Amino acid sequence: MAVYTEVSADDINAFVADYDLGAVLTFKGIAEGVENSNYLLQTEKGNFILTLYEKRVDARDLPFFIGLMDHLAAKGISCPRPVHDKTGDALKTLCGRPAAIVTFLQGISLKRPSPAQVGEVGRALAELHLAAADFDGYRANALGHDGWQDLAQRCGARADEIAPGLAQTIADELQFLARAWPEGLPEGVIHADLFPDNVFFLGDRLSGLIDFYFACNDLWAYDLGICINAWCFESDGAFNVTKARRMLAGYTAVRRLESREIDALPILCRAAALRFLLTRTYDWLNRVEGALVKPHNPIPFLERLRFHQSATGAQAYGLEQERLT
Amino acid sequence: MAVYTEVSADDINAFVADYDLGAVLTFKGIAEGVENSNYLLQTEKGNFILTLYEKRVDARDLPFFIGLMDHLAAKGISCPRPVHDKTGDALKTLCGRPAAIVTFLQGISLKRPSPAQVGEVGRALAELHLAAADFDGYRANALGHDGWQDLAQRCGARADEIAPGLAQTIADELQFLARAWPEGLPEGVIHADLFPDNVFFLGDRLSGLIDFYFACNDLWAYDLGICINAWCFESDGAFNVTKARRMLAGYTAVRRLESREIDALPILCRAAALRFLLTRTYDWLNRVEGALVKPHNPIPFLERLRFHQSATGAQAYGLEQERLT
Repeated sequence: MAVYTEVSADDINAFVADYDLGAVLTFKGIAEGVENSNYLLQTEKGNFILTLYEKRVDARDLPFFIGLMDHLAAKGISCPRPVHDKTGDALKTLCGRPAAIVTFLQGISLKRPSPAQVGEVGRALAELHLAAADFDGYRANALGHDGWQDLAQRCGARADEIAPGLAQTIADELQFLARAWPEGLPEGVIHADLFPDNVFFLGDRLSGLIDFYFACNDLWAYDLGICINAWCFESDGAFNVTKARRMLAGYTAVRRLESREIDALPILCRAAALRFLLTRTYDWLNRVEGALVKPHNPIPFLERLRFHQSATGAQAYGLEQERLT
Repeated sequence: MAVYTEVSADDINAFVADYDLGAVLTFKGIAEGVENSNYLLQTEKGNFILTLYEKRVDARDLPFFIGLMDHLAAKGISCPRPVHDKTGDALKTLCGRPAAIVTFLQGISLKRPSPAQVGEVGRALAELHLAAADFDGYRANALGHDGWQDLAQRCGARADEIAPGLAQTIADELQFLARAWPEGLPEGVIHADLFPDNVFFLGDRLSGLIDFYFACNDLWAYDLGICINAWCFESDGAFNVTKARRMLAGYTAVRRLESREIDALPILCRAAALRFLLTRTYDWLNRVEGALVKPHNPIPFLERLRFHQSATGAQAYGLEQERLT
């Protein structure tokens, strides 16, 4: 939950007057997103979300994120569509912070998605990849393959405070990934953080994707690895192969996986587990007592990493044999 | 801001199915209220607020609060109206906690109200007092006159950690109020916490009153004293007599103050300042590092108390001489 910046009634009224949105009817901080301040904004023209970008977001990246949402919405992806003011600007300043108004998406995020719902996520992920293929923005993945070594060094031996041997596990995994990293796989813009919090459903229908603030250019199949980690493990840590099968079936119904991507799937799942293990370990070791946002526990991603390490091929994720040829 | 209880999509869908509200379209935690968990709930029938009552609210008081909002809304007061389920219940259970759905009020709460807006608050307060006059519920004021001695003892000498001499100031003021407390003034149900956070405006028009969870039976003029403390001091601590004059004019345009109430106004303003000074002092001394809700600074209410101590009569609050006779 997060509202870091207090915005007064005068502030919001003056800000909204720049847009063709009529008068402000409601303005409430909402407990959504951990990096930014988010508000429900109701005007005479409907419901919107106002986001104030706080310091963890690099302001230089904002044109990429706003442009990407504009592009995806125009292509029919159900994502927040940036609202442009009377002079055409979508990225503005409010209370000294970069700020944007986007459209409000209906739906609820799920804590316990069903296999059918996970299948819808796979489909939406592939649609997102294809819709972004002709987007002309580029953003390197700051939390990608090249950044992990640095993150691991900043955690250092203290990782063992979380679990004995964790520092060595991380070092070994980094060495493995450096050696085994698949070259030449299809890439493009990926969401990179498509966890259940960031997907809305109305019943079994996926109604929207939100929070594009980790989006970047990277391997498409790596994004699929992130989603397998995010959606296909139960709260007790058990891997749910039915969900993984539905995730992959949903994805491949829209975009066919190349055989090289299929071969690389266990490695990319390991990589995705390591990425969240590293950031959560770092945040855990550097947590501030009393901070508004509690850091996530890294351990579930250590367990997921171990599962993927034991996977001997894509069939561990439920891909049927005929798809493997 | 406050969302203490996580409610899953399955939980909320099952809960809302008890009502005649159609399907859930949106469900988001909102940063409003400090005692309870509040959610924006959008269904096919419109926008609502779902509140889960957390442990600081005594569940035995909830029928009073729900009944009061029902009563006030029926009388035309713009306040949240409890929604009753298909069997007629408005007070239910969700995730093991008492819970209620109320209607959603448009409007924005103000950080810097104008004198005209403060006048609207005075008018709304009097309308609230009169509308509740025939409400048949009763709730003693747990934070009223009779409770302060106990609260002061629980703060004890440690109050001086906040400001040197504060413990003695509190003891002296308690002694003064015990001696000077006005008997026989008109009483009824009061809001008891009508701070700017709890009043919504659309432009200069007051669009709603919220958060009735301190409402209780007490002196009407004491509620006015609370509002003078809450609305008529600037952020630098200065008393704004223009706002107080408008507050009183707004109130008396709806309900004439008796001369005994006018005489007692400085005492009741002192009492109201002491009440918030005491609770804030207690919360400050017993704050928990890392808690979600940061305690309010007690000092502004010490300064307000000193202002009221220096007031020689109701004219200090801008009541014109002719009203005093």
